[in-house]
Amino acid sequence: MSRERLYIYDTTLRDGQQTQGVQFSTAEKQVIAKTLDVLGVDYIEGGWPGANPTDSEFFESRPQTRAVFTAFGMTKRAGRSAENDDVLAAVMNAGTPAVCLVGKTHDFHVETALGITLAENTENIARSVEYIVAQGREALFDAEHFFDGYKANPAYALEAAKAAYEAGARWVVLCDTNGGTLPHEVYEITKAVISAGIPGDHLGIHTHNDTENAVAGSLAAIDAGARQVQGTLNGLGERCGNANLTTLIPTLLLKEPYASRYDTQITQDALTGLVKASRKLDDILNRVPFRQAPYVGASAFAHKAGLHASAILKDPSTYEHIEPSVVGNSRIIPMSNQAGQSNLRQRLAEAGLQVAAGDPALARILDVVKAREAEGYTYDSAQASFELLARAELGLLPEFFEVKRYKVTVERRKNKYNRMVSLSEAVVVVKVDGEKKLSVSESLDESGSDRGPVNALSKALAKDLGRYSQAIEDMHLVDFKVRITQGGTEAVTRVIIDSEDGQGRRWSTVGVSPNIVDASFDALLDAINWKLLREFAGAEQGAAE
Amino acid sequence: MSRERLYIYDTTLRDGQQTQGVQFSTAEKQVIAKTLDVLGVDYIEGGWPGANPTDSEFFESRPQTRAVFTAFGMTKRAGRSAENDDVLAAVMNAGTPAVCLVGKTHDFHVETALGITLAENTENIARSVEYIVAQGREALFDAEHFFDGYKANPAYALEAAKAAYEAGARWVVLCDTNGGTLPHEVYEITKAVISAGIPGDHLGIHTHNDTENAVAGSLAAIDAGARQVQGTLNGLGERCGNANLTTLIPTLLLKEPYASRYDTQITQDALTGLVKASRKLDDILNRVPFRQAPYVGASAFAHKAGLHASAILKDPSTYEHIEPSVVGNSRIIPMSNQAGQSNLRQRLAEAGLQVAAGDPALARILDVVKAREAEGYTYDSAQASFELLARAELGLLPEFFEVKRYKVTVERRKNKYNRMVSLSEAVVVVKVDGEKKLSVSESLDESGSDRGPVNALSKALAKDLGRYSQAIEDMHLVDFKVRITQGGTEAVTRVIIDSEDGQGRRWSTVGVSPNIVDASFDALLDAINWKLLREFAGAEQGAAE
Repeated sequence: MSRERLYIYDTTLRDGQQTQGVQFSTAEKQVIAKTLDVLGVDYIEGGWPGANPTDSEFFESRPQTRAVFTAFGMTKRAGRSAENDDVLAAVMNAGTPAVCLVGKTHDFHVETALGITLAENTENIARSVEYIVAQGREALFDAEHFFDGYKANPAYALEAAKAAYEAGARWVVLCDTNGGTLPHEVYEITKAVISAGIPGDHLGIHTHNDTENAVAGSLAAIDAGARQVQGTLNGLGERCGNANLTTLIPTLLLKEPYASRYDTQITQDALTGLVKASRKLDDILNRVPFRQAPYVGASAFAHKAGLHASAILKDPSTYEHIEPSVVGNSRIIPMSNQAGQSNLRQRLAEAGLQVAAGDPALARILDVVKAREAEGYTYDSAQASFELLARAELGLLPEFFEVKRYKVTVERRKNKYNRMVSLSEAVVVVKVDGEKKLSVSESLDESGSDRGPVNALSKALAKDLGRYSQAIEDMHLVDFKVRITQGGTEAVTRVIIDSEDGQGRRWSTVGVSPNIVDASFDALLDAINWKLLREFAGAEQGAAE
Repeated sequence: MSRERLYIYDTTLRDGQQTQGVQFSTAEKQVIAKTLDVLGVDYIEGGWPGANPTDSEFFESRPQTRAVFTAFGMTKRAGRSAENDDVLAAVMNAGTPAVCLVGKTHDFHVETALGITLAENTENIARSVEYIVAQGREALFDAEHFFDGYKANPAYALEAAKAAYEAGARWVVLCDTNGGTLPHEVYEITKAVISAGIPGDHLGIHTHNDTENAVAGSLAAIDAGARQVQGTLNGLGERCGNANLTTLIPTLLLKEPYASRYDTQITQDALTGLVKASRKLDDILNRVPFRQAPYVGASAFAHKAGLHASAILKDPSTYEHIEPSVVGNSRIIPMSNQAGQSNLRQRLAEAGLQVAAGDPALARILDVVKAREAEGYTYDSAQASFELLARAELGLLPEFFEVKRYKVTVERRKNKYNRMVSLSEAVVVVKVDGEKKLSVSESLDESGSDRGPVNALSKALAKDLGRYSQAIEDMHLVDFKVRITQGGTEAVTRVIIDSEDGQGRRWSTVGVSPNIVDASFDALLDAINWKLLREFAGAEQGAAE
């Protein structure tokens, strides 16, 4: 069988932005577009020029891409020509090589939402597509509510879709706008459209995840013959999201029958950047990455069950459907109550600590982990704190310094201009090499803005650690996560801090206390101690999660 | 066509507990079991008796359920009889009406992981199932790696599965243990198993979500003839999770062809408790509910796009695949940069504020929302703060009291017993009815434990608000979420507080500042003001999200 070309169309910047709570800036859109282009998608839909100021600005400053840049809009309205529709003009003025216009194909929507006749709607579709083609652009028709429309009135849905195809649309995209169509229906209806005369290599599929079948629906449409698949990074999108390209791309490249049947523009090399691309989007959104995400989640190759973990140590294919590095991910053997000693030894080895099987320290470490987890700690996501705990039990944790006490004050009052201002101040007392050191810092940054008590505390703690001061100069806090959780019978605050240093290391530490400042302080202390271990104890690198 | 019975098998308490970071206590398992029973699943798999102390304890104290309580274990090992296998004995001793044993069906695993012959493995399966049946229990066989096994050696996979069926297993459960099997393969292989002689009404399906196809794979198996479907609440489970029953249940009850073809034990009335069941599990796990979850997510019926929102106001079926109340969810029109005035009026109406179309206040409110969102606020998830903001613009926000200043001190030092202890103290100065009131509180609770600076501040703020004090006595904080986010060009802290009162109201407020104490204080202030509005301003109820 000869290989066929399959096209990937990304709509993270348009439909992805319909996610509740998501609003990209122009600069963020540029970064995302570049990320998508490195990955190798065929089309990047940038937004709707003219619909809002950000989208308009983005099209004026859009980056150069190998992917075909696409502007989204809607078919011309009734009662005016395509040339004289100002909404369409704004879309055309963006000057993109491709233009995708949404239009109605469901009779109910034409008659009730638009309030025009079916014939007028068909005419609007045909004239709009013709106009795009006449302007020398590639035309795409986004057939809104196509599947629901086909179920209600197949003849009209086909008429509308065919009008676009016959007017010169390169692609007719079948949209399951409300997300309620199941995969077997997507398969049958896509087959019917091909039988009705639109060739599969001119058909696209656009699904939503309202029944958790967006990926399966997309695969069903490809099975039926569609050759363009639309989706978003991390499955962003209106309501429950769009088809998740972060899942679809590796499935199409790695799984049969797709891998040997289709060519895409995405290389195996680019595929190893998938986790990075996914995390980049989460970084921009300030979202905690979804641990259980297929292929790219931190837990996607985490083997918690004792039986699984021991088999994995013999042969990873026993409990893994793909090799994690192919998508840039890695295997982890998490620490938890359920973990057996083989999990623990593997985890210690990752931290550079070789401990013989049967060493009584293993049981002690498991006991401490268990007791700490009951207090609200979590070591699954704080590998650096886990390493410190294990080293303490193994007698391999040097005491670099000792904290004697601290005090933080937070004040908010009116200043002399009658404006409310706040200021925090921290005093930390440590003992380093037998010498007592008092440090004080306030929470103001270079611009004079208050950064709060944890900032003041962090600065005071790092201010004078004697001979260790220089070693921690290049570290900084990159994320700070707080949850109220259960510690025994009481609610406690759990703080997880992600730190980074100038050498590209990134590590996570955890602190737990009913007092948020205390919990933060403990996580900060662990972060500094882990860094000092790397710099002074000759420990192996690469232990941080 | 006569209706057939479809069975729902829940494994939240067993496979769900394999999720990274999840560890249920016995008490939590009891609450989850009751929640599942109210929902109406057919089977509840409680865990593996004997595998760990929690599971053993849970089986001793398991609640009475309508669902068939099931203990999980593994088939007897080679070289001993079922009667003399101590691992199996612990499972049988739990005394459950049903027992599900996992066994190998993939030749590779039999020979390399177990190191026994294929014939020995078949023998182990048959003898174990016979033993369960002889003890008067219902037997289930969990055919591990069945799909991978069938692809590698169909004859042996079928031999192993049939051994269980012929030995009397009520159900043979086909497991896609590694999660890599696509729906079309699940369909074909399930068909082949039925052709080979195991009837569909004795076949179960157990999928994992490693390609985001767990739900689709389960549906494909049902399409092929399987009549038991296994999964977990909220899709918990090893790696990327199990098939999500929270999605599968409404799909099977509401979507065709399933709705008119199958009967389940779950009633339409119980289905309206689905959101509640999903949230209950998140509460136990202290997880932020996934907003985009199909059917039950807070965003599942959120219509952000302006065009969608205006159509929804005319007829919800234009952009909704089901009526949200059927699963206990509700429609929301979120506030955001993209929202048009029709979204805004709908949102105000939900807060009991009727504003005429074209009122200039609408544009002002949109501007303030936009400016605040640029500073890092989010109103999508803090409806109570949104209402306060809108009321301020509409001149409908009374000033109940004014905060003049506050000061919080956090100290940690050694006490007289040489133990590190911490204590926070807060002073708040407010003006109520023209009178200045100074209040001071410390962070110790009834048991003398330190609860931190936000607790001290909250108590000092609530301590004396004059005639308003009594009205806020019944409110308390139920969740406190903190994220580092972008405010303009700087990182800021966003705090979202969920509050509850004695009348069952629950509302969310937001505060943003680089200073976490300040951000918390602002969210606390909003929470109190919203409550006072409800008590003193005669506002409509039900506005909180």
